[in-house]
Amino acid sequence: MNLKEIVKKIEPISAEWVQKAREHTLELAIPPRALGRLHDISERLCGIQRTLAPDVSQKAFMVMAGDHGVAEDGVSAFPREVTGEMVKNFLRGGAGINVLARSVGAEVLVVDMGIIPDVDPGASELRSRFHVRKVGRGTGNIAKGPAMSREQAEESILHGFTIASELFSTGVQMIGTGDMGIGNTTPSAALGAVLTGKPVEQMVGRGTGIGDSALENKCELVRRAIEINRPNAADGLDALAKVGGFEIGGIAGIVLAAAYHRRPVVIDGFISTAGALVAHCLCPAVIDYAFAGHCSEESGHRKMLDFLGLEPILDLRLRLGEGTGGALAMGVIEGAVRVFNDVLTFEQAGVTASETAAAPKAG
Amino acid sequence: MNLKEIVKKIEPISAEWVQKAREHTLELAIPPRALGRLHDISERLCGIQRTLAPDVSQKAFMVMAGDHGVAEDGVSAFPREVTGEMVKNFLRGGAGINVLARSVGAEVLVVDMGIIPDVDPGASELRSRFHVRKVGRGTGNIAKGPAMSREQAEESILHGFTIASELFSTGVQMIGTGDMGIGNTTPSAALGAVLTGKPVEQMVGRGTGIGDSALENKCELVRRAIEINRPNAADGLDALAKVGGFEIGGIAGIVLAAAYHRRPVVIDGFISTAGALVAHCLCPAVIDYAFAGHCSEESGHRKMLDFLGLEPILDLRLRLGEGTGGALAMGVIEGAVRVFNDVLTFEQAGVTASETAAAPKAG
Repeated sequence: MNLKEIVKKIEPISAEWVQKAREHTLELAIPPRALGRLHDISERLCGIQRTLAPDVSQKAFMVMAGDHGVAEDGVSAFPREVTGEMVKNFLRGGAGINVLARSVGAEVLVVDMGIIPDVDPGASELRSRFHVRKVGRGTGNIAKGPAMSREQAEESILHGFTIASELFSTGVQMIGTGDMGIGNTTPSAALGAVLTGKPVEQMVGRGTGIGDSALENKCELVRRAIEINRPNAADGLDALAKVGGFEIGGIAGIVLAAAYHRRPVVIDGFISTAGALVAHCLCPAVIDYAFAGHCSEESGHRKMLDFLGLEPILDLRLRLGEGTGGALAMGVIEGAVRVFNDVLTFEQAGVTASETAAAPKAG
Repeated sequence: MNLKEIVKKIEPISAEWVQKAREHTLELAIPPRALGRLHDISERLCGIQRTLAPDVSQKAFMVMAGDHGVAEDGVSAFPREVTGEMVKNFLRGGAGINVLARSVGAEVLVVDMGIIPDVDPGASELRSRFHVRKVGRGTGNIAKGPAMSREQAEESILHGFTIASELFSTGVQMIGTGDMGIGNTTPSAALGAVLTGKPVEQMVGRGTGIGDSALENKCELVRRAIEINRPNAADGLDALAKVGGFEIGGIAGIVLAAAYHRRPVVIDGFISTAGALVAHCLCPAVIDYAFAGHCSEESGHRKMLDFLGLEPILDLRLRLGEGTGGALAMGVIEGAVRVFNDVLTFEQAGVTASETAAAPKAG
């Protein structure tokens, strides 16, 4: 299947099922919509899954890893070797996403989308969950030329799409996106600026913790990357190829897969949202299927989310990536589903409804 | 034990253990403090439990129920019978708090602190978890006189303290507070205005969903309650007796018990925070032990939290009470603990630390 065929088959979620779900919410033995955003979440899930019995019990994270040519220009507080070392750490089960995914009962897959070293999974915990889909060994330095070719951009998206599709076909109901890649806030900021139309300085932040002069340098690199490459804001593949990254393309593929298979996807922070921006550019309807797990500390993330019309579930000043914010948010999403499915109605509970309970109210 | 003896034994959390915990956080194989508030939460837990291995695996909710004389004055969208009906619903396991507590593996206790009817638990799910500690059958109408006597106020606090203490002694590590009581946003607003010193109109909100004219009436009732009763803002017992409620006193007792036994307590929304305000007035150090689960839709809640110096973990436009916001927040707290305990250190993971990783950084 190619990208065009995928996009053609994606439809918005079902407004009819959302409406049915809203009616059910008003029957629950609580004041009308008193659980606020939990209702919005569960009703959207009903629209996604076309059901009045939403189910997100089987969950998985896909942590997409890639290296970045621009990392040679001092855009990160960490050296580039850390990408491969962290992939090993994911496979060992000792990183933040492993711990937080376990906490919500989600499995973790790791995908080498194009890191420089070859990682031997050895006898590691997640050996069977490690996929190698190297589109290249690190991207080109976007401050000097394109990150990758247009063909590689499509390939990266299709890898994400294919692995996510396999997960959905085995019964996974909800996927969280995660990322690892030293330097990857730089291409994400570039994609953010290009695809939202916001100024570069609003999109560039401190990543893992760079100082003021490195921040200025990073802004300058992003400006140069856009100037040299002239990415087309109306063409997601072109933008991804010119200023993106392999793992960002993979994440875009996961988002497309969720919409294609009518399943929810929980996007994490800045890098994941850059992937969602690419997917949105290719097919705006995908956003119906996406939940924003959290708002990151990385400046620019809120602006990306606003552009996509997504309200983050959590705001806990996280800036780790890996899918960690999405994992925490899955706990809230699961709570929303349980409220929808398990809270008794006024009738079942024998509780007197208020006179206003029948009318939907916002406040 | 009386209230004075309890208060005398409460100490602030251990700054030394918080400092040790901060040092451990910097050893984790992530950029310095990249999981933001999760670190603040786990480090405070280390200070509370005086350990570097915090543990919140055994959790419980105490849902405190009471009726309110002022409910006869049309301050709620629901009739007063609903308090008893909802207590039955809690015992049946079908309410929001039951569902969300199950979702984080917490047990639910229900305490009749002074509702009007007698509820027969029958063969209900939570029969053994139902405690009857009726301080009275509903409070007096605070718009006409005091809610209760000073003795009753102390009694309500001691009931909450005693039941929470029993839970802690059986191994529960973290308690969430919950409330049920038609009309109870009115005494909570009165306590909020008295104990924070903020104007009444900033504290009065729509509760379960009253309209504009009922809102104005509610404001007027709260003003009258304060005028008639003249509660002493420096005396938590006096304020509770004059404009409070039995379940609010019970919640204050839970907060005191947490601090007394050096255990965390997760306070829920507007009513629970009114209880925390009473406990804080009696003993300011209790706030060290309290986590604010969420910021409620009820106007005034944010102001109460600001006054107490508590930053809410979630902000999901909830306005149900029962402990529901606390239950969702416990998922985040548990995640924070797991990160602290289970994420590998740079050394364990064989990951290269950045040059800046050794220095604690805010952003």
